Amino acid sequence: MKDFQAFGHKTAARLAFHVLNWNEEQTNEFLNSIITAKKNLKYCSKCFNITDTDPCPICSSPKRNQDSICVVEDVRDVAAMERTHEFKGVYHVLHGSISPMNGVGPDDIKIKELLARLMEGKVKEVILATNPRVEGEATAMYLSKLIKPLGIKVSRIAHGIPVGGDLEYTDEVTLTKALEGRREM
Amino acid sequence: MKDFQAFGHKTAARLAFHVLNWNEEQTNEFLNSIITAKKNLKYCSKCFNITDTDPCPICSSPKRNQDSICVVEDVRDVAAMERTHEFKGVYHVLHGSISPMNGVGPDDIKIKELLARLMEGKVKEVILATNPRVEGEATAMYLSKLIKPLGIKVSRIAHGIPVGGDLEYTDEVTLTKALEGRREM
Repeated sequence: MKDFQAFGHKTAARLAFHVLNWNEEQTNEFLNSIITAKKNLKYCSKCFNITDTDPCPICSSPKRNQDSICVVEDVRDVAAMERTHEFKGVYHVLHGSISPMNGVGPDDIKIKELLARLMEGKVKEVILATNPRVEGEATAMYLSKLIKPLGIKVSRIAHGIPVGGDLEYTDEVTLTKALEGRREM
Repeated sequence: MKDFQAFGHKTAARLAFHVLNWNEEQTNEFLNSIITAKKNLKYCSKCFNITDTDPCPICSSPKRNQDSICVVEDVRDVAAMERTHEFKGVYHVLHGSISPMNGVGPDDIKIKELLARLMEGKVKEVILATNPRVEGEATAMYLSKLIKPLGIKVSRIAHGIPVGGDLEYTDEVTLTKALEGRREM
């Protein structure tokens, strides 16, 4: 358990002391839920989101638009997008981003799988929602160059000032992106 | 000096104790620079930015594009935009935003003056760079409705995820705006 780094020392101590107060029934319930999660949760064979059914509820929902794919780095980003209740398409989880510094190349993330989905010919738009950092931008550029020749619309989520933000305290790069990305009203 | 609220108690105390260590010469120098600033600094008669010459160096620069006006709420927002070194047009400082809750109506900020500048017929684009809050958005909407009938292009700076940000920790409203404002690559 040496490399277990989901949370820090304080949170670990809080959990440990909490566990000490449990009776046997509560302890078993907790252990069983972890075992069940490990046994039943898998990755969706289409979008690679975490799921207990395959394909996942999003991929198999008739209410979701199968012709629009939102590409994200991580399953947590799917959760973030779903919280907006705005996106009606489906997802593709890359499970990482291209990062030569960390030895992660295009073949180490789910890019082949994305291209295979696009080859089926049903997708009209790919929305690249990788994180607006160096690796996320590089991954978006790489994907864009691969996907555009297929005749599929490729778009990138907007960079700009967060809602409730302040021009004065916004960094120069974001402000430049906000200016470049201005939209006609 | 009761209503002097440029900074809080701690900063005020720090300044006060610093002043106590000055000799007479340093004290006079400080006092004179405040007097000079108060005497020489005024608002530019064109853009209402703070300046010691009228029109201000930005309005009178031959290098700046007079046909593009960036509308901001505050002189500090001009400084923020200038730090990007990206905007080559001129500014218009509203000195506030429309805020009925605080009794600030359209006539209380420099909107008449902006319209007067636009009536001269030289301006091709107005970029609304008010802050992405309720008041800033309301002001942008109000200005857009006034300016569009004049046949001038009106645009709004982009809302979205700040550069270096993270989808997972971005609030829902910003994420929705980032999705809505996606741009084709």
